[in-house]
Amino acid sequence: MSAIPEDFIQQTAKLSDEITQPFPNSRKIFVQGSRDDIRVGMREIECADTETSNGVEKNPPITVYDTSGPFTDPSIEIDLMKGIPDLRSKWIDERGDTEWLSGLSSDYGQQRQQDAALDYLRFEHIRNPRRAKAGKNVSQMHYARQGIITPEMEYVAIRENMRLDEFRASDEYQMLLRQHAGQSFGAQIPDSITAEFVRDEVAAGRAIIPCNINHPELEPMIIGRNFRVKVNTNIGNSAMGSSISEEVEKMAWSARWGGDTLMDLSTGKNIHETREWILRNSPMPIGTVPIYQALEKVGGVAEDLTWELFRDTLIEQAEQGVDYFTIHAGVRLAYVPITAERVTGIVSRGGSIMAKWCLAHHEESFLYTHFEDICEIMKAYDVAFSLGDGLRPGCLADANDRAQFAELETLGELTKIAWQHDVQVMIEGPGHVPMQMIKENMDKELKDCYEAPFYTLGPLVTDIAPAYDHITSGIGAAQIGWYGTAMLCYVTPKEHLGLPNKNDVRDGIITYKIAAHAADLAKGFPGAQIQDNALSKARFEFRWEDQFNLSLDPERAREYHDETMPKQSGKVAHFCSMCGPKFCSMKITQEVRDYAAENQVEVEAAFEAGMKAKTEEYISGGKKLYREI
Amino acid sequence: MSAIPEDFIQQTAKLSDEITQPFPNSRKIFVQGSRDDIRVGMREIECADTETSNGVEKNPPITVYDTSGPFTDPSIEIDLMKGIPDLRSKWIDERGDTEWLSGLSSDYGQQRQQDAALDYLRFEHIRNPRRAKAGKNVSQMHYARQGIITPEMEYVAIRENMRLDEFRASDEYQMLLRQHAGQSFGAQIPDSITAEFVRDEVAAGRAIIPCNINHPELEPMIIGRNFRVKVNTNIGNSAMGSSISEEVEKMAWSARWGGDTLMDLSTGKNIHETREWILRNSPMPIGTVPIYQALEKVGGVAEDLTWELFRDTLIEQAEQGVDYFTIHAGVRLAYVPITAERVTGIVSRGGSIMAKWCLAHHEESFLYTHFEDICEIMKAYDVAFSLGDGLRPGCLADANDRAQFAELETLGELTKIAWQHDVQVMIEGPGHVPMQMIKENMDKELKDCYEAPFYTLGPLVTDIAPAYDHITSGIGAAQIGWYGTAMLCYVTPKEHLGLPNKNDVRDGIITYKIAAHAADLAKGFPGAQIQDNALSKARFEFRWEDQFNLSLDPERAREYHDETMPKQSGKVAHFCSMCGPKFCSMKITQEVRDYAAENQVEVEAAFEAGMKAKTEEYISGGKKLYREI
Repeated sequence: MSAIPEDFIQQTAKLSDEITQPFPNSRKIFVQGSRDDIRVGMREIECADTETSNGVEKNPPITVYDTSGPFTDPSIEIDLMKGIPDLRSKWIDERGDTEWLSGLSSDYGQQRQQDAALDYLRFEHIRNPRRAKAGKNVSQMHYARQGIITPEMEYVAIRENMRLDEFRASDEYQMLLRQHAGQSFGAQIPDSITAEFVRDEVAAGRAIIPCNINHPELEPMIIGRNFRVKVNTNIGNSAMGSSISEEVEKMAWSARWGGDTLMDLSTGKNIHETREWILRNSPMPIGTVPIYQALEKVGGVAEDLTWELFRDTLIEQAEQGVDYFTIHAGVRLAYVPITAERVTGIVSRGGSIMAKWCLAHHEESFLYTHFEDICEIMKAYDVAFSLGDGLRPGCLADANDRAQFAELETLGELTKIAWQHDVQVMIEGPGHVPMQMIKENMDKELKDCYEAPFYTLGPLVTDIAPAYDHITSGIGAAQIGWYGTAMLCYVTPKEHLGLPNKNDVRDGIITYKIAAHAADLAKGFPGAQIQDNALSKARFEFRWEDQFNLSLDPERAREYHDETMPKQSGKVAHFCSMCGPKFCSMKITQEVRDYAAENQVEVEAAFEAGMKAKTEEYISGGKKLYREI
Repeated sequence: MSAIPEDFIQQTAKLSDEITQPFPNSRKIFVQGSRDDIRVGMREIECADTETSNGVEKNPPITVYDTSGPFTDPSIEIDLMKGIPDLRSKWIDERGDTEWLSGLSSDYGQQRQQDAALDYLRFEHIRNPRRAKAGKNVSQMHYARQGIITPEMEYVAIRENMRLDEFRASDEYQMLLRQHAGQSFGAQIPDSITAEFVRDEVAAGRAIIPCNINHPELEPMIIGRNFRVKVNTNIGNSAMGSSISEEVEKMAWSARWGGDTLMDLSTGKNIHETREWILRNSPMPIGTVPIYQALEKVGGVAEDLTWELFRDTLIEQAEQGVDYFTIHAGVRLAYVPITAERVTGIVSRGGSIMAKWCLAHHEESFLYTHFEDICEIMKAYDVAFSLGDGLRPGCLADANDRAQFAELETLGELTKIAWQHDVQVMIEGPGHVPMQMIKENMDKELKDCYEAPFYTLGPLVTDIAPAYDHITSGIGAAQIGWYGTAMLCYVTPKEHLGLPNKNDVRDGIITYKIAAHAADLAKGFPGAQIQDNALSKARFEFRWEDQFNLSLDPERAREYHDETMPKQSGKVAHFCSMCGPKFCSMKITQEVRDYAAENQVEVEAAFEAGMKAKTEEYISGGKKLYREI
């Protein structure tokens, strides 16, 4: 191995403190499953007591879903050169249906490995890849359909359930469990998520657990509309800039703020090595769009793409451990020219590459004609399909048009074929869609794609707000999540304008965590409201620190508060700078509450009398009556 | 008049350049009505030509709704000491139903005027107030119900219509007029907004034009669900800080970014004088919550409030020119104690003040018992009611509860009474509401309040994101706007945490402009999509400057773009830093378009063949068929 330049090590061996510092008043906890090595990480936020006139009231700690993996675990020392701990190899070994290969199968992978000039870029501990034994299928869907509950399935059941059964049994959580009934559009969410339920959803194709056998570092998670709505984040360099170390930092940063999965969309230099670094350090499933790299390999000339080259790229990436591939196999030759009537044509990069190929050759897309060959690769490593929406609308004017929906119908056909191979599938969705047309997208996807999980980019509900497209799309994302979308692909403030920096990534993720959580609440996901109730109680009781700590972004909440009230006394003040001390409505409300407690019977009687009097007014219609009550 | 301290003049006589500089490539235009003095200001954005292989294609200028009044009019010199130009005095005079008073009617107003120590704070050119002649009613609703079309009504018709009839008649706009059908929930929006339609909507109580006869500076605007959705902004000092000059700057800043109305919620020092400064310089209707000032007058002790004091405050403010009053007359004694069972009790400041008063006196609220007396004041100056939702939910757990809905029903009763006096009314709404419960709020408001315009604060769809509550509430605002809410009260990132600064105000407004515009699109407001289509066309054609200029925040769009591509060449580049030059999908799409243009007949035939083949696949169900096409 050639020498690693000094500055490179310094850049990449460690993550910056802002990524690894624990969240305030939080600790990493692990919920144990049926075996010792199923330990599901969660974050527990401790809350202060409430001081009441009757003494001290305990506020139970709140558990939140944790995507940050080992990065916020103080017991694990992160060394990016070594990668994060391996969780799943034992589970994969035990199944006995895989074999270690003696080397990389892809030509390109071998070529990169043999290039000594790249040694300094290479990850220190590259493993040989694993593959399914001949004739075996290692997908989670395959196991599920045989009735097997894998450790991955049990893991996600515990993770989704987030101690809800324990909380229900505990007196101190009763108030916090209060939740409004949800309105689901066909989703049927049980009171508790069990491993059996997970298995059945995966078997039916309604949910996927993306977990390549070559990515044993990942913490399993599930994508399906009967589970918590997930958020995908995107990173990746482009020809315009960004280095490996920056991309790895962004990956860990995404995990910290709540990204559930991450797509590496690199199109610049050293795509192969960048991906290796990301995979070896990512607790999140990693997705890619293999056609991007394939195009790099032919010098950016779409016409020169071939099935053989693409196939080699799939194997190269599958053996590195990519968990899902976006494949734009629905961009068929016949659909391409009808996009010409659009205002913004084809805006998907993968879609436009394939469109160009189809037109240049006047031939059906090789992604479509070789779809079953692709399935064979997917099931040998358990890579899930993310069937790309290459013809998604790039502006409101093009929303829900015949090109978009023709492609969606084709994705439905392909879903059926993938399922014949027991390969996991999710379906990508738009894009730019005005609010009144969002539900049609969801309904059509469920029908035409047989309830395969939907994974949408926004949608953006207006085109006129570049620099705020995390918000224009967050509005659409919350709605489509409620209607049944399983995963939301985040959008940052830089969308349409440039490459996002770390702050943009954070803004994008938090916006999408809001959308996803709002959707969970609206669907009535069990226990979703616990965190809202706990934060609101803290807010009402002026437990400022708890209000910050229970929020999606404790650091920024505190920073904004401190901008006008920087002193420590502000953290215990029964008011904030918005209203000042005399006008604080919360303080006055406490007085109301004290009054009601002292006059319990009177209250109900007064209310009944008030309602009754009002009814009489309605009946008599006399405009003066209200004075007489 | 005592000497004005030097630094005070410097602070307040002029607005900063960032407020008054014209938007890029924009000019102020005026659309003339039926008389010379009805000139409605709009902003016209010039667009560059498109260079095509067939030569140059003209892109028509785009007209946008303009709330910035004289601040962005280069022909008007802004001197805050003098106030902005008077638009409406002639219209008011002509009606002949008002009289000039010889001085202020309110005791408090007189007292402030006579206090020489306040001279330096006082606005230079205080006018004597105007009032309706005895027995006259000067409300726009009163005129409308008599079949009169006032200049104000004609003004708002032109303003809402935004040159749409001209555009329809012009060939160059045809592509940009493409718009999806809206889905309205009971709204009936005509193809063109006429003055007759405005009159009829105001007469029916479905819309209001807030325009106090003592605020002749305002540019009339309308609030109703058959018109463009509006955005209210809030400013105001508190005991914790902020000066008059800062508040006036914030007002003008709000106007610049698109605030349609503005509430002055000051609760700190010199409320009376701050308001005078704001009113004399505001082209937007100004609202207040008079109970805040009343409470100041009794030293913050709610129990000491009296009807007489409150009445004097209403008159004081009405004679300054406040256009709408938030009055929490629905917080009835009987409803107060039932809020004790809530997680966050009463979170409205006005609501909690009145609750405290009711409990302390064990008496019905004087706002309720004196409601008709209040109507008498409102109609003498044409102040509109904004009936306050003092019992709105402060967290998801309290949403749509019996306290909230009992109050809403009472607001409906009060609406009927106000309408008996021909006084304009809008109804305030929540608050914190999960998505699945938002529509019930709108439906109930329309039914119980007889279609009076709804004016909501958000709603926030989750409680867990302090520092991002412009977004949590923007999600709810877009939805409720679509369902029929007429005006959205903005929320800034500092909500729940502290007093917003100028940047927070800008973030809050743009977020709410997005929500309001998304709602207009979803309702199918005629012409709403022109700006989206124009921006998307510019985006597709790499007219970067036009993309920035056509956006809601041109300055930030440009700044974000320039972060990664600062050079001038980036503004003409056919790619951005997100994808780099080779991968730009838009560029590839142009090639598709060229192909389709050359092969028009083939395209349709190929598509039909493709669709037909697909149908056959479905029928035969053969999984291999797709290879044969």
